Amino acid sequence: MNLCLLSASEIISKIKKKEISSTEVAKSFIDQIHKLEKNVKAWTFFDEDLFLKKAKDSDNKLSSGKSLGPLHGLPVAIKDIFQTEDMPTLNGISIRENETNRHDSSVVDLLKKAGAIVMGKTVTTELAYYDAGKTTNPHDYSRTPGGSSSGSAAAVASFMAPVAVGSQTNGSTIRPASYCGVAAYKPTYGLISRHGCLQQSFLLDHVGLFANNVEDLALCSSVVIKKDNQDRTTVDYKANDLLDGTKSIKNLNPKFAFIKTSRWNNLDKEIQKLFEDFIKENQKNITVYETPQFLDKIFDYQKIIQETDMAHNYFSIYDKHRDKIGKKLIEAIERGLKYKAKDYVEAEENIHLLYQSFKEEIKNFDGVVTPSTTGAAPKDLTFTGDPEFCTIWTYLGTPSISLPLLQDSNRMPIGVQFIGNKFEDEMLLKNANWFFQKSKI
Amino acid sequence: MNLCLLSASEIISKIKKKEISSTEVAKSFIDQIHKLEKNVKAWTFFDEDLFLKKAKDSDNKLSSGKSLGPLHGLPVAIKDIFQTEDMPTLNGISIRENETNRHDSSVVDLLKKAGAIVMGKTVTTELAYYDAGKTTNPHDYSRTPGGSSSGSAAAVASFMAPVAVGSQTNGSTIRPASYCGVAAYKPTYGLISRHGCLQQSFLLDHVGLFANNVEDLALCSSVVIKKDNQDRTTVDYKANDLLDGTKSIKNLNPKFAFIKTSRWNNLDKEIQKLFEDFIKENQKNITVYETPQFLDKIFDYQKIIQETDMAHNYFSIYDKHRDKIGKKLIEAIERGLKYKAKDYVEAEENIHLLYQSFKEEIKNFDGVVTPSTTGAAPKDLTFTGDPEFCTIWTYLGTPSISLPLLQDSNRMPIGVQFIGNKFEDEMLLKNANWFFQKSKI
Repeated sequence: MNLCLLSASEIISKIKKKEISSTEVAKSFIDQIHKLEKNVKAWTFFDEDLFLKKAKDSDNKLSSGKSLGPLHGLPVAIKDIFQTEDMPTLNGISIRENETNRHDSSVVDLLKKAGAIVMGKTVTTELAYYDAGKTTNPHDYSRTPGGSSSGSAAAVASFMAPVAVGSQTNGSTIRPASYCGVAAYKPTYGLISRHGCLQQSFLLDHVGLFANNVEDLALCSSVVIKKDNQDRTTVDYKANDLLDGTKSIKNLNPKFAFIKTSRWNNLDKEIQKLFEDFIKENQKNITVYETPQFLDKIFDYQKIIQETDMAHNYFSIYDKHRDKIGKKLIEAIERGLKYKAKDYVEAEENIHLLYQSFKEEIKNFDGVVTPSTTGAAPKDLTFTGDPEFCTIWTYLGTPSISLPLLQDSNRMPIGVQFIGNKFEDEMLLKNANWFFQKSKI
Repeated sequence: MNLCLLSASEIISKIKKKEISSTEVAKSFIDQIHKLEKNVKAWTFFDEDLFLKKAKDSDNKLSSGKSLGPLHGLPVAIKDIFQTEDMPTLNGISIRENETNRHDSSVVDLLKKAGAIVMGKTVTTELAYYDAGKTTNPHDYSRTPGGSSSGSAAAVASFMAPVAVGSQTNGSTIRPASYCGVAAYKPTYGLISRHGCLQQSFLLDHVGLFANNVEDLALCSSVVIKKDNQDRTTVDYKANDLLDGTKSIKNLNPKFAFIKTSRWNNLDKEIQKLFEDFIKENQKNITVYETPQFLDKIFDYQKIIQETDMAHNYFSIYDKHRDKIGKKLIEAIERGLKYKAKDYVEAEENIHLLYQSFKEEIKNFDGVVTPSTTGAAPKDLTFTGDPEFCTIWTYLGTPSISLPLLQDSNRMPIGVQFIGNKFEDEMLLKNANWFFQKSKI
């Protein structure tokens, strides 16, 4: 049995039953990394000995009979923009003075307290923007894994990690998940703390999760969704039962609206056909719904907020190290320096106004379905692909899940994106799980 | 007995005990208005018959034995930027198309549900900014009452209303209270809903209250402090016991820090002396504390936010009716159109960062004392005075109370301002009440 191919739930369950040890699990992932990392290049920090030591500690804890957390012994990969006390955090740039203090970010702290093992740090694009890192797509090494959570998506897709933490400010979780063929979940804005994570945009930054199935996403979320006084946007949300809720799909009969958005024509014909077939196969549960016009304003609003916030948060790096950072980053910051405050206020206010319109618009549905990306991963290692199918849902702060349900003629994965109302994350996970389980029949 | 001179608590208590009727109370205020309104000009809408009809309804309800709210029969004056279903709302400008729909704002709705009687609408400066309305100072008709809640402060000061609702975006509650010699309270940002109130600045607008003593402020707050889904900044706060808490001052021994702020030299020598004497008299409870440098950044930050938000919220009035609005308003909007988004983001983020610094700075004190204004009301009916002693505390969103504890050589009132930690409003009310009761001994 190749342990690295097991789901997170299976790994934890087998460890707790002492059918396998944390050390055996760690060794299986180490073997996989030895086999694939030279091509996939998902890791920016990976220390085999440190990983094995933590696995041994986990085994000792189990033997000692101490009470175990819900993720006991589970290895987790962490995007290199989240601080970790025993590993460096470089945010995808090589400027040493940028190396942040070694404290655990809130997400890492919660994962560790639940018994998970931080196995290493995964590649991010430069400051989580568009300038690509070294990672390739595990399905085709000549293609991008997507960004900015490139390493997290690629590590899970290549079974070098069972689950991974990433982030999304525009399309940085959903896009790489779609390109790499894994499941991913960006919860409602305000559910997972960003404390100890690189701040690109206070209003848009979300923590995201990668796994190979919906239930593992629910399991990990149930641990990291928690109100945190260090991130004032976080709220109380009952997450304990997320996994049970996600599993309860018997008798479910979801009704989703397929929204093409104004960007539909950026899909090539083959991909459009894939989605049209998907809708037809699921016609009892998915209805094509005319794209509401008001959603189109969001593309400008998102850009104003993201680029202004980058100019604000990255200004000192831009100011001191312009020669050491990428062209796309510089251009975004320079656009960000020019926006008017009045336009920013309008963009910020509309997050809330447009969400109310959206909620009203889809009130007769359980949620929205739309592509995760414009197509399969581009054959280009310098370009991480277009996030435009994520922009609306990141801006609105709605929960969003990408599932690898389609495949193009090159057998490259194509993600289908499911979106729900804010703070109805459990319902969205359940519905997405229903579609996911159905796809496997 | 002149009923209009009673406190709010006394009025309610006597009505409930049937010692007086709501109608008799209303008549007493109507008499006072007949006597003083021609000089004070506090009202923009006052309909005697409507007021008497409501008082009659209130009396009928009492006779019917129905359960009564905590403010049963209490007349309340409402600043003319809060919507009221049975009275026009003009926001201090004469552009008829600006007249907003006649629905009750959340504050008005809560007051009415508690049994209060909306007696009329009070003068606001133009769009709650600096261009003065018609109101004069009841202590000297040649002086400003302050703004922007000019009519609310003047109505309470002249006993034309027992309590009044106002608002504060910079110094619009605390300043007129100081000039007119009444007590006023601006709660923590997020405690009172702004729904149905003119929006000048989402980040800075607060609802404020006026009364003739601290306990009446607590009584009215306990009714209007309530989470409201229509204003997403509002939070749950246990306000039911605010009045009891405010009254419990036995054995209290508050420790306050007197902070002069960088604007201290804008007080003339006489006023400085008044405060120095006040500190000396209260030396067991007030210590002069060196002004923390970081507070000084707030003046720029507040200006960027307020003027940008005015440019955003008032743009269509500016665009269509520039000829019908005041010079100060036009200038502020025109400055607001020019700020950079990056500077706005910095100003917005620092609301939270600087509050953390402030909280840490005064952690050994129960709160801060500072002047409410630079001095007595200026002898100028076109200028509503300088809000600079309120700017810091409005920006930070801390609760703030002005008490009429001092008097200059012209017998004009001078307010002393008490500030507490955010969401520690009950403690601030209690401490302010302690100082207020002590001043009367």
